[in-house]
Amino acid sequence: MDDKEAVLNRLKRIEGQVRGLHRMVDEERYCPDILVQISSVQEALRAVGRKLMHNHLRHCATTAIRSEDSHAAEAMYEELLELIYKHAR
Amino acid sequence: MDDKEAVLNRLKRIEGQVRGLHRMVDEERYCPDILVQISSVQEALRAVGRKLMHNHLRHCATTAIRSEDSHAAEAMYEELLELIYKHAR
Amino acid sequence: MDDKEAVLNRLKRIEGQVRGLHRMVDEERYCPDILVQISSVQEALRAVGRKLMHNHLRHCATTAIRSEDSHAAEAMYEELLELIYKHAR
Amino acid sequence: MDDKEAVLNRLKRIEGQVRGLHRMVDEERYCPDILVQISSVQEALRAVGRKLMHNHLRHCATTAIRSEDSHAAEAMYEELLELIYKHAR
Repeated sequence: MDDKEAVLNRLKRIEGQVRGLHRMVDEERYCPDILVQISSVQEALRAVGRKLMHNHLRHCATTAIRSEDSHAAEAMYEELLELIYKHAR
Repeated sequence: MDDKEAVLNRLKRIEGQVRGLHRMVDEERYCPDILVQISSVQEALRAVGRKLMHNHLRHCATTAIRSEDSHAAEAMYEELLELIYKHAR
Repeated sequence: MDDKEAVLNRLKRIEGQVRGLHRMVDEERYCPDILVQISSVQEALRAVGRKLMHNHLRHCATTAIRSEDSHAAEAMYEELLELIYKHAR
Repeated sequence: MDDKEAVLNRLKRIEGQVRGLHRMVDEERYCPDILVQISSVQEALRAVGRKLMHNHLRHCATTAIRSEDSHAAEAMYEELLELIYKHAR
């Protein structure tokens, strides 16, 4: 995978953010402030997912194009879109 | 575009659904019922978008792979993901 | 409903936007341009949904608070959140 | 806050899930499998957010209704919707 180290570092940071959330709830901080923090963790996770998707897209595209079978290529595009639409939400 | 007729038919149906929404609001129907109907139009639009994305993905993948320049290919994957992540939400 | 006229006008405009989408697909316009247009219709529908939700929220909050039964109030909040989380996506 | 302990436990579990993600990336597991896991963490965070929102909604509704000033109540509903629509996505 490209940028494996960068992805691992991001996940370490996300783990720290989740611990921060735990502390905020424990200290009974103001709800909207905690919600902002939750959204920030979710954006960070989305960015990690997108990074992984980039690698997967390159891999699938290469396989689809190299396949002689155009039906197989179409099926692969469809599967890839299924995956992205599910996880990009 | 593949399935152009199918996409055009779906859009006709969506237009009818929006007219139905207009009627529901005009008749002051129960809010949650109207919201269900709005979600159904949004899902239908999402499906149309995904259909278009399938065509675009095939087109981009072919171009990216055929390009001799791997930087250009990477940039195209990134642009494609940008597009999908924005519209798949 | 508050602003019923405003909501009806928005829905008229959305109907026109969907007709515009039909035309774009028919003329085989560039995919990403059509996708931008689809997103704009979806945002417009989301705004209509939110307007309806405002009315519904006021109505539910009033009912929940006036109810003597705190369990009934809690159930109403939960139902309302269920509704919003489903349609705000 | 209601169910403070339950929310804290959920956050502990989410922290563990993020550590699991780190391991999966480190072991270079299959991309789609990691993406499924990311989505599961995101759903878990969304559930925590919703729990907090329940408390906040009850609090706001009570304040809005008790306020003598109907403009203030309307503004509070609008602010609450702003918050929910932003974080329910």
